[in-house]
Amino acid sequence: DKQSRGEFACRCSGHDGGIAPLSNPGSYCILSCHVLQESLLSSASGYRNYRGILNWCVVMLVLSNARLFLENLIKYGILVDPIQVVSLFLKDPYSWPALCLVIVSNVFIMAALYTERRLSVGTISETTGTFLHFVNLTTLLCFPSATVLTLTSMTPVGGVFALGVFTILFLKLYSYKDVNMWCREIRHSNARPSVARSNGSAVHAHVSYPGNLTHRDIYYFVLAPTLCYELNFPRSPRIRKSFLLRRLFEMVRSTWMVPTIQNSMKPFQDMDFSRMMERMLKLAVPNHLIWLIFFYWFFHSSMNFVAELLQFGDREFYRDWWNSETVTYFWSNWNIPVHKWCLRHFYQPIMRRGVSKWVARTAVFLLSAFFHEYLVSVPLKMFRLWAFMGMMAQIPLAWFVSRFLRGNYGNAAVWISLIIGQPVAVLMYFHDYYVLHYVPQS
Amino acid sequence: DKQSRGEFACRCSGHDGGIAPLSNPGSYCILSCHVLQESLLSSASGYRNYRGILNWCVVMLVLSNARLFLENLIKYGILVDPIQVVSLFLKDPYSWPALCLVIVSNVFIMAALYTERRLSVGTISETTGTFLHFVNLTTLLCFPSATVLTLTSMTPVGGVFALGVFTILFLKLYSYKDVNMWCREIRHSNARPSVARSNGSAVHAHVSYPGNLTHRDIYYFVLAPTLCYELNFPRSPRIRKSFLLRRLFEMVRSTWMVPTIQNSMKPFQDMDFSRMMERMLKLAVPNHLIWLIFFYWFFHSSMNFVAELLQFGDREFYRDWWNSETVTYFWSNWNIPVHKWCLRHFYQPIMRRGVSKWVARTAVFLLSAFFHEYLVSVPLKMFRLWAFMGMMAQIPLAWFVSRFLRGNYGNAAVWISLIIGQPVAVLMYFHDYYVLHYVPQS
Repeated sequence: DKQSRGEFACRCSGHDGGIAPLSNPGSYCILSCHVLQESLLSSASGYRNYRGILNWCVVMLVLSNARLFLENLIKYGILVDPIQVVSLFLKDPYSWPALCLVIVSNVFIMAALYTERRLSVGTISETTGTFLHFVNLTTLLCFPSATVLTLTSMTPVGGVFALGVFTILFLKLYSYKDVNMWCREIRHSNARPSVARSNGSAVHAHVSYPGNLTHRDIYYFVLAPTLCYELNFPRSPRIRKSFLLRRLFEMVRSTWMVPTIQNSMKPFQDMDFSRMMERMLKLAVPNHLIWLIFFYWFFHSSMNFVAELLQFGDREFYRDWWNSETVTYFWSNWNIPVHKWCLRHFYQPIMRRGVSKWVARTAVFLLSAFFHEYLVSVPLKMFRLWAFMGMMAQIPLAWFVSRFLRGNYGNAAVWISLIIGQPVAVLMYFHDYYVLHYVPQS
Repeated sequence: DKQSRGEFACRCSGHDGGIAPLSNPGSYCILSCHVLQESLLSSASGYRNYRGILNWCVVMLVLSNARLFLENLIKYGILVDPIQVVSLFLKDPYSWPALCLVIVSNVFIMAALYTERRLSVGTISETTGTFLHFVNLTTLLCFPSATVLTLTSMTPVGGVFALGVFTILFLKLYSYKDVNMWCREIRHSNARPSVARSNGSAVHAHVSYPGNLTHRDIYYFVLAPTLCYELNFPRSPRIRKSFLLRRLFEMVRSTWMVPTIQNSMKPFQDMDFSRMMERMLKLAVPNHLIWLIFFYWFFHSSMNFVAELLQFGDREFYRDWWNSETVTYFWSNWNIPVHKWCLRHFYQPIMRRGVSKWVARTAVFLLSAFFHEYLVSVPLKMFRLWAFMGMMAQIPLAWFVSRFLRGNYGNAAVWISLIIGQPVAVLMYFHDYYVLHYVPQS
């Protein structure tokens, strides 16, 4: 045990945890108790264990939340009634169109499966198959956006939810099509049909190409927390109930914290644009905290929860983006499912066609910018390109940071771009939405 | 370079950074892109590199400071004029008595040196020497406290500063006396007179016992950022100017941040004690931030600055207390100079006398509680024992935390006790001071 050993231990060279008796004249332990060494916080020490600081952030967040909660309770009584919130969600007719859209999405899943079944037995040619997939995937993107744009009963929140689900489904089915095609290519080139997997549980039978085209398989993939299809996903050996409960607790706790933080953004709704700069800084911190909570809620708690339920083994949903010293490192590490998809189904295929590295990277950013714009503009029914430009602005920013800033300074620059960049984009949309809907036309 | 390698690299088993061409049918890299692994934030992953979170805290602190600064600038104009602050320090006659006390402290240093010189040549006996040291050290503690208590021109801040200097000097001279005594004991038992040091620079000549009793040696020790005397301190090879400048910059930056945070504590001065609990939580966060800034300023920036100037090699002024999962781990790792002194000159000597481990630990806490009380009560001229009780309350708290809480929960408990515990004690003294000085006697 670390502290029982280190607490009052003698840290002299060669001596560990002993109280050197003076009766032993050879022991100089007591006379020399200093060692040449750097402080832990100096960059030269190479020390990097700050797990405690993460706990500090959580404690500070909970404590300031508790204070705000107490203050609100004293001033206004109970504001947020959880049962009321749930009943609001259930009764509100505006939430139905989004749900209907999600139910309709099954049609596209079936279309992809049956196209692949035909392709596997050779009833249709590769060209026809590609065409059918193209039609299916294009409809998958256009149909919900058309619905969201035409239906007046669709709220922005419902629209973002529905379009988010369809975007995820688009990426998944694109991956599904690609992998099945690669499997046929490998079958044609007479390679070994299967390779023994080193990871993954032995409980689940190994599946090889045409055997994977089942309803069960495609629905497992649709529900699994990944965007990259694979015939044999690594599986965790069992469902750990305590793990499941902890993630569930975290999910509930996070949603409880958001309204309290949102309260601190209230002054913003007065919309006094004369003091834009000061307001933006005021908006930046709670906005950033909500984003952080969202990140933890979605990428850690929820995805791990789903993965545990499905016994999905690969839990790498994010890497250590908090240490990123360049903008590109952040973008390729904060959202691993999307990053993996972009790499496997977009970057690598166009690289294989002989496109240069820089063009391919810019293309990835363009694709990402397109989907950001798609997810924001369509539900708000405003085409302003702020999200698109925000994503594209990452390229010169990435160049600047990697060119001029190193180490902790680069890391601080990435944090600042996150804390400031997001609210600027949010403010732009909010401003335009406000002008469009609430300012009387003169 | 980490990110240039990892950015768009294929992470399949056995493949690194490659884009596996499909023309090679043996490569199944593209087909299996998932690996059985845990998320980084899960405790099972064992991942602990959160250096970026530390940068996040600094960025957030600077940004919210910038916002407050901007807000104050808009509302009131420039409040804190640095030149005015400096001139205030220079002109204020109240700061002189503390400085005079510090100058007088040289008398005690000389007394310790000359007593040791006599002892080394055997002019006076060990008993006489111990008695002289006892008188010297007792006077060292009583004289300044008597001065602070009697002089009406002494401000609380000046008093804390003077008593702090004298407390440090007391611990240093106690260590000086002990080490020299041990050296004589070793000389008497005919041990090897010197041992080759593995660390420490070869530039500085090796010193053995009576040769260390010089003015230069004792003043180096008094100025060095340690409380434990040693004949041959490990020395760093040279003074790094860039290191010195960075620490100096940090020292200035920290002092600049404190007034802005203090502003957010202003509402407290209205003293509405009916809403104590809410007020305390409001006080807790800025108080904690000031403590954290003080920690960084004193234990990292200032001590490293002095050590760099003196080429003092041992820079371990703190260990990773931010990760501490028990209260005892925190107390034995946040302040290494004092911890080292307690271990070497108090805990180990009484352990050698056959005292049990638990009694010895409690004695250390008692000593520490005494000095905390000494440093607070004397300058405020109020004997309330809040600081003493605060320190003693650590013993049951330590037992509770180590008994019932583990891992991150233990760590969170330590943070909470730090964030809440300090302002409670501060509030107690503030309340009593306020009642004593500002409430009219009825």
